[in-house]
Amino acid sequence: MSTTDIREAVIEADEKLPIIRITRDFNATPAQLIKAHTDPDLYARWVGPDDISTEIDYWDARTGGSWRFLNKRGGESYAFHGSFHEVGDSRIVQTFTWEGMPEGVSLDTLTFEDLGDGRTRLHAQSLVESFEARDGWLASGMEVGVNDGYAKLDGLLSDGAL
Amino acid sequence: MSTTDIREAVIEADEKLPIIRITRDFNATPAQLIKAHTDPDLYARWVGPDDISTEIDYWDARTGGSWRFLNKRGGESYAFHGSFHEVGDSRIVQTFTWEGMPEGVSLDTLTFEDLGDGRTRLHAQSLVESFEARDGWLASGMEVGVNDGYAKLDGLLSDGAL
Repeated sequence: MSTTDIREAVIEADEKLPIIRITRDFNATPAQLIKAHTDPDLYARWVGPDDISTEIDYWDARTGGSWRFLNKRGGESYAFHGSFHEVGDSRIVQTFTWEGMPEGVSLDTLTFEDLGDGRTRLHAQSLVESFEARDGWLASGMEVGVNDGYAKLDGLLSDGAL
Repeated sequence: MSTTDIREAVIEADEKLPIIRITRDFNATPAQLIKAHTDPDLYARWVGPDDISTEIDYWDARTGGSWRFLNKRGGESYAFHGSFHEVGDSRIVQTFTWEGMPEGVSLDTLTFEDLGDGRTRLHAQSLVESFEARDGWLASGMEVGVNDGYAKLDGLLSDGAL
């Protein structure tokens, strides 16, 4: 593994735009990472914190499709839904709403940068309509879900599940 | 008609966010304006500049649905597509891409403010990922399409088409 690999997700707030950017490297091709983000069974196995489970309600990962899933922890359930604006070979653009705050919508762009040698840098950008909403997400403890999830995805990749 | 009616669309750039906001009043109920934005045959009759025609390619105006249409002028054709993230009773949230610049995506929120007496104020917000993209839209002559379109919608309303 190169010393320049980004194995702990870098989570950054843009200084001038209501955007969060996440950067993370994987031992995977872009095609493998796209599959990890578009195959519902695989996605449910890695997304989110270690102490939740994910149940897909509906999922149609194509340009113009949509999705909804539930996160469950003990007796609690949290629902999320959105649309796939674009599912391409090097980019996925989708919307995202946590149904506990239904007025909030983010526009998420995932870009898969091929680093060669079977490695890919994931750039995940979330754009929202206000700095308050953006800073609310940053203060929500989202880094736990991001890092737990990507570590599970590392495990799926090293297990050959992708 | 009240002198406070907004009959020429007000098109504003947010000072601190990459957002365009459009405000316009109509002699219509919120339900009529939602129908004007979700019924594909009606939408094709009013949207855009006077010198173009609109052909719907596909259209599924429900939460999780998607849409695509073509604008035609002489021998030219311009295509647009997006997803309906939310189609509600007082709000529509959708994505929007002009296929001539496929990397650009806006997240559009339409809010229908009931003014009473059969009048409604439309608030249309477009959020994009950079100020350059936002200012490019403002410099594109978009106000012609906006004002022509809303005048056609006024006509459909006064003709009883809605």
